Amino acid sequence: MNAGPSIAIVGAGAVGGYYGARLALHGYDVHFLLRSDYDAWRSRGLQVKSVAGDFQLPPSRLRAYNAAAAMPKVDLVIVTIKTTENQRLPALVAPLLKDETTILTLQNGLGNEEFLAGHFGAKRIVGGMAFVCINRVSAGVIHHLDHGFVRVAEFVGAGRSARSEAIAAMLSQSNVNASVADDLRAARWDKQVWNVPFNGLGALLDATTDQLIGTSDGERLVLAVMGEVLQAARADGVALAADAPQRKVHATRSMGAYLTSTQIDRRLKKPMEIEAIFGHPVRRARRAGLQLPLLEMLYFSLRVLDAQKVQ
Amino acid sequence: MNAGPSIAIVGAGAVGGYYGARLALHGYDVHFLLRSDYDAWRSRGLQVKSVAGDFQLPPSRLRAYNAAAAMPKVDLVIVTIKTTENQRLPALVAPLLKDETTILTLQNGLGNEEFLAGHFGAKRIVGGMAFVCINRVSAGVIHHLDHGFVRVAEFVGAGRSARSEAIAAMLSQSNVNASVADDLRAARWDKQVWNVPFNGLGALLDATTDQLIGTSDGERLVLAVMGEVLQAARADGVALAADAPQRKVHATRSMGAYLTSTQIDRRLKKPMEIEAIFGHPVRRARRAGLQLPLLEMLYFSLRVLDAQKVQ
Repeated sequence: MNAGPSIAIVGAGAVGGYYGARLALHGYDVHFLLRSDYDAWRSRGLQVKSVAGDFQLPPSRLRAYNAAAAMPKVDLVIVTIKTTENQRLPALVAPLLKDETTILTLQNGLGNEEFLAGHFGAKRIVGGMAFVCINRVSAGVIHHLDHGFVRVAEFVGAGRSARSEAIAAMLSQSNVNASVADDLRAARWDKQVWNVPFNGLGALLDATTDQLIGTSDGERLVLAVMGEVLQAARADGVALAADAPQRKVHATRSMGAYLTSTQIDRRLKKPMEIEAIFGHPVRRARRAGLQLPLLEMLYFSLRVLDAQKVQ
Repeated sequence: MNAGPSIAIVGAGAVGGYYGARLALHGYDVHFLLRSDYDAWRSRGLQVKSVAGDFQLPPSRLRAYNAAAAMPKVDLVIVTIKTTENQRLPALVAPLLKDETTILTLQNGLGNEEFLAGHFGAKRIVGGMAFVCINRVSAGVIHHLDHGFVRVAEFVGAGRSARSEAIAAMLSQSNVNASVADDLRAARWDKQVWNVPFNGLGALLDATTDQLIGTSDGERLVLAVMGEVLQAARADGVALAADAPQRKVHATRSMGAYLTSTQIDRRLKKPMEIEAIFGHPVRRARRAGLQLPLLEMLYFSLRVLDAQKVQ
């Protein structure tokens, strides 16, 4: 066991399971809160197939729980449950907190730091973005396919702090490429520039990234959606580079036939992360008096599709 | 047999079958060009269940053909094949024409008169819009569910002419509510105001009209799409009333859970009429230098879905 912070992973699906397992493998004291995969982890442990190196953690090296009340209070809570489950967070996180506990959210989209800050105080909150392609193959089996880079930043004040540097260092020691961002809001919006068109159109049309930008009309549409995200960011006080859309489309060409999490959710008839990725940006734009027709259309359309799935 | 014009119906599906059968029932000399339902019509005739009165035409009263070359030349050709089959029209229509033959297209969307004019001369062309809810239930069985109103107008010059009045009168005599429009282009664009959002979003989201306008966000989106169609019409030289969108949404509320033809096509995995309803308006707007993000998105999205169906 490392002499380091004790850590709780709230929502040990693919992302939480992977990063938590990397930290546990390195010797950190990690406590995993699970739901559906709890029995599998307790009986067979966790198997990780990773482009950064495969590894296994036997049940004896996994501190798995199926109830927050049974967990110890920790120094760092890492939140990785799907944003569609955010309403469960107050009850799941509260039992884990000491006075000085930090809460790091690695969730998608916007509004998660604000939600946690509203319940637990803004000073605890660190935001993080995971640029990773990772799947839960089956109970207790995670497949890390590509990337894995994590950027963290303080929610209050400047992004850099001793605490955020320590989190990035801890992840880096554990074989996770990590760094500190100067400005959490700018970094979040920058990620949105990619997520809104590719997750949105990808789910709406069941189309992979290469299909979306494979025609000139498709590329133009993706760029138009990205342009609206830039407008929404600016209305929210974040000025992104004007060439960010072109650069992101260009970078996406090397990703091949990539399925976003939202497209996968739709295929699997799971709830899509509509509010975090689409609803929050749309509402921020509306409050600023902006008309963003494509974002509004994506937001509306995905809610219609989500309601059809649940039926 | 009436002393009246001889008529050919090119594409006797639901719409062509219904209107042609009404004309034949009234005694007009109607010749039907069919493809898939030819054998059924020849052996069992046509059965029409209609809100305007059921009727049957036995094989002895149906002049059905499966090849244009076998048909006589006629005074009036009524074109009702799907616009996705327009490339077949030159070969299907040419054998039917005398020097003075009129061609009436009752097809959906924009560009059909121009296409026929390009092949057969603009002076022959009359445009028509069918406001009708009608299904081909099975081979030789047509179900006319609601409405049935037809508006016709000259393609060249003013909409009214002795010829267009005569066509409307012929339909009216045959129990089809019909009238002449003053301005074909204005009438076509006015119909587009309804068709683009309801056919487009209906097919994209597999949603009925009442589902699309059942929420305030949905109604706002439908109105925004209609607003773009108004812009496209204006760029094409047609000024529609500014309150047309509100009035059309209001009128749609009484239609209940209506499925548009494009939604039905998608469900049945048939080709959707994308170019006529979406591609032509988008291209006319582009030529005028207009940016219409929602129309562009609908046009692109439906093409992606159409390509997936054909696979």
